[in-house]
Amino acid sequence: MKLEEKTKTSKIIFQGRLLDIRLDQIILPNGKISTREWVNHPGAVCCVPVLPDGKIGLIKQYRYPIKREIIELPAGKIDKNEKPDFCAKRELEEEIGYRANKMQFLANIHPAIGFTNEMISIYLAEELTKTNTKLDKDEFLILMPTDLNAAIDMIWNGEITDVKTIIGLLWGDKILNKRN
Amino acid sequence: MKLEEKTKTSKIIFQGRLLDIRLDQIILPNGKISTREWVNHPGAVCCVPVLPDGKIGLIKQYRYPIKREIIELPAGKIDKNEKPDFCAKRELEEEIGYRANKMQFLANIHPAIGFTNEMISIYLAEELTKTNTKLDKDEFLILMPTDLNAAIDMIWNGEITDVKTIIGLLWGDKILNKRN
Repeated sequence: MKLEEKTKTSKIIFQGRLLDIRLDQIILPNGKISTREWVNHPGAVCCVPVLPDGKIGLIKQYRYPIKREIIELPAGKIDKNEKPDFCAKRELEEEIGYRANKMQFLANIHPAIGFTNEMISIYLAEELTKTNTKLDKDEFLILMPTDLNAAIDMIWNGEITDVKTIIGLLWGDKILNKRN
Repeated sequence: MKLEEKTKTSKIIFQGRLLDIRLDQIILPNGKISTREWVNHPGAVCCVPVLPDGKIGLIKQYRYPIKREIIELPAGKIDKNEKPDFCAKRELEEEIGYRANKMQFLANIHPAIGFTNEMISIYLAEELTKTNTKLDKDEFLILMPTDLNAAIDMIWNGEITDVKTIIGLLWGDKILNKRN
């Protein structure tokens, strides 16, 4: 069975500071016409930072769409023409004020394939040295150094619900604790 | 430190068949004004279906935003006033043609907190009996029964990149294989 959906027309519905919304006419596998609404996204990165004391550099941030604080790994959007591993180092230093001297690629993940092409590249960041944070004007966060095992417990007890954070921590756990 | 961002104004930028796009003016923790663009989402469900032969009911679907086929767990959006566990049973039967007689809640996850309030509730679906699929007119998919251990390997080797699928399978593995 052929599953492919072909693009017939594509138009930009809204181009904001963050969001780029598209409305496409498509041809379904059965030849019929339908529409697809989607968010065009430049991609993002996420780091599992191992701090000098061995704790994981989680952060607490207010996330407006869900109207509450949430526990996350440092992450950010890729700038135009930026390489993901460079972006990961940059975002890590900007958000928590540490430079990583060792970066290991873990995974590419798709957070919301129903309506966006966003892909997040996750890295394990080690050999960290202290520098300074450089937050965006509208960015506020608190660093929460957390033992890896405690962070894993926070997944299973429902305290951590952010997908990149769950997957980054479980992947980091597999490597750092040599599980599976 | 206070992290909360308060809503000043909120307006609907685009209301499509699927997407509901909002542009809000907000008050930052430091009192300054900024904007937030976000996708208002009704929430979704995802099932880890254990088929009568013990395999996991993965599906293959073409996902237009990423322009390729992807391996996923059955999932779908919550209808108005629908309870998540009811929706999970409904979507499972519609997509793969099995009715689940035992549903166990696993987790609530947030796929893209940077720009949407979407929350996905994940369930383990067991004691399945064969019925019939009932796909949407523009929905095409292939059932791929897969051993749980093989599915877990597909996470670590990068074949499975969809976040709800990664988290659902690892959570299911923890329960079904009594790991950790």
